[in-house]
Amino acid sequence: MQAAPFGERLAAAVAARESQIVLGIDPEPARLWPAALASTGESRAELATLLAAAEHAARAFGGTDAAPDAGRLEAAAAVLAHSIALIDAAGPACVAAKPQLACFERLGFGGWLALDAVCRHARAAGLLVLADGKRGDVPVSAAAYAQALLGATPSPFGAAQGLDADAITANPLMGRDALEPLIAAARSTGAGVFALVRTSNPGAADLLDLRLDSGEPMWERLAALVAELGDRNPQGLADVGAVTGATAPEHLERMRELMPRTPFLLPGVGAQGGEVAGLAAAFAPGRAAGLVTASRSIANAHERAGAGDPESAARAEAERLRALAWDLS
Amino acid sequence: MQAAPFGERLAAAVAARESQIVLGIDPEPARLWPAALASTGESRAELATLLAAAEHAARAFGGTDAAPDAGRLEAAAAVLAHSIALIDAAGPACVAAKPQLACFERLGFGGWLALDAVCRHARAAGLLVLADGKRGDVPVSAAAYAQALLGATPSPFGAAQGLDADAITANPLMGRDALEPLIAAARSTGAGVFALVRTSNPGAADLLDLRLDSGEPMWERLAALVAELGDRNPQGLADVGAVTGATAPEHLERMRELMPRTPFLLPGVGAQGGEVAGLAAAFAPGRAAGLVTASRSIANAHERAGAGDPESAARAEAERLRALAWDLS
Repeated sequence: MQAAPFGERLAAAVAARESQIVLGIDPEPARLWPAALASTGESRAELATLLAAAEHAARAFGGTDAAPDAGRLEAAAAVLAHSIALIDAAGPACVAAKPQLACFERLGFGGWLALDAVCRHARAAGLLVLADGKRGDVPVSAAAYAQALLGATPSPFGAAQGLDADAITANPLMGRDALEPLIAAARSTGAGVFALVRTSNPGAADLLDLRLDSGEPMWERLAALVAELGDRNPQGLADVGAVTGATAPEHLERMRELMPRTPFLLPGVGAQGGEVAGLAAAFAPGRAAGLVTASRSIANAHERAGAGDPESAARAEAERLRALAWDLS
Repeated sequence: MQAAPFGERLAAAVAARESQIVLGIDPEPARLWPAALASTGESRAELATLLAAAEHAARAFGGTDAAPDAGRLEAAAAVLAHSIALIDAAGPACVAAKPQLACFERLGFGGWLALDAVCRHARAAGLLVLADGKRGDVPVSAAAYAQALLGATPSPFGAAQGLDADAITANPLMGRDALEPLIAAARSTGAGVFALVRTSNPGAADLLDLRLDSGEPMWERLAALVAELGDRNPQGLADVGAVTGATAPEHLERMRELMPRTPFLLPGVGAQGGEVAGLAAAFAPGRAAGLVTASRSIANAHERAGAGDPESAARAEAERLRALAWDLS
């Protein structure tokens, strides 16, 4: 059975959950919810099993000193407990979860175990999983990233299943042939690829805003490429999306002209509700055409005075953003 | 004690090993050396321990069905055995090993265990470790990648050590502030960052060759950024390098003008010795200023008629490339 195209799956998910909010999962081990740290302590017995298992594993893979892994694994277990609590609290107001791969990679193999478990938990909670790694490489390596995130790797021991994400982010610098293996793999499972077009960091201006001799800025060329690569089902959204920072809303109208049926992933909204109001152009082709990502503004909402415990504060902030975007679109 | 700057460390390593060859480690599970597969079978007892440990670990991290992990872990163990055999065979003719992160990520947490072990083995064999992930993200996420590849992550359970690479590859599309956390972390440990300037795939022309309104192609602007970001020790090589595909040698002279003290990482040389001869401009500031990467041409050298067993063929091909580059530089 062929999977439905990503644009259709996304539109259906947004309608069903009445949300365009993407819950960013960027756990910092030094800034986890206290309850997550406590639950790691409580499940000490389970953790002891895990640590013993990890020592075996590290030794079998040629490690001689398993000691440095112990703290790293405890950190990974705490990151997992935190991420699960975050999904349970804020997930009901969201349509997707977006783990930032760097935050898991930095904890080594325990981090990848946690990442696997986070993706499973998000999926079980009814969320789409958007693996945020901004990968990009020559075609043969791009194909390997596609196997890691979207597909499986053939091996003499059977197919090695990857993360099975519903969507990924990708870096388009190396051009069309570097994106194509990612898009082909995504298409075969009904997943989507969000390519960077104009990011939200100040440095994005260094290259993406450079003016070409044709008169257009670099990001417009990327926008044209994204529009061209997306599946042009005239009835719905494309399956190649664009990462379009919400910090420059004046660009959004032009982006929508260039990419009329492209889903936009809008990071940089942060805690400022005012900014969501600048995103109307993103939603023009339909509610699912603009996905608003928020990470720290949800996970750290309890740090504002009077916001209550982390779970309640996260739930309230996600719901606030959900209602704001939904009413606008 | 402060680490020596990367440019100095690189020059010393190239002189000591009389080699500018970087051994790419891009293992494909379906195309491993037969001896590696056999050794995985022979160490069945050890592998059984590992698999049991992994099942414990997966369960502790919330997995319910550990079965799909078994084949994936066997594949990771075979990939590790292959990579170690490759390093043992070809490493003596090389100055660095360059694991392609995608090839390990696609095997999940077992792949990261294998990656850790490959880096340790390469270092023990006297090779620099160049983690090839072409990462690039907004500053906060770039800092997380820096912790994963070059440093450590603070946590309530102690610092979680990362891969501890001697150098990494990075994608500069998101601009200066996205590169800076990687460069700062690298600098603090004497490591280097190789940013993409003009890659070797055909699609690189789509964006990197675009002409700006100032008249220069995009890649020249990237070259200027790389030269500016590198440590300008007037006596030696910079600590920010450039990935400069060897498939367009006519660009190399211009690149050298724009980046007079930048180490170049030259992929795309492949099995064709003729191409190495086009690289003279890369070596102009000194032998360590041009690093020639080769992956499949070494690992798959035995597939040519009469090349002998994989180990001998890999050793011979690495030595052939080493002598060719050394004589030219």
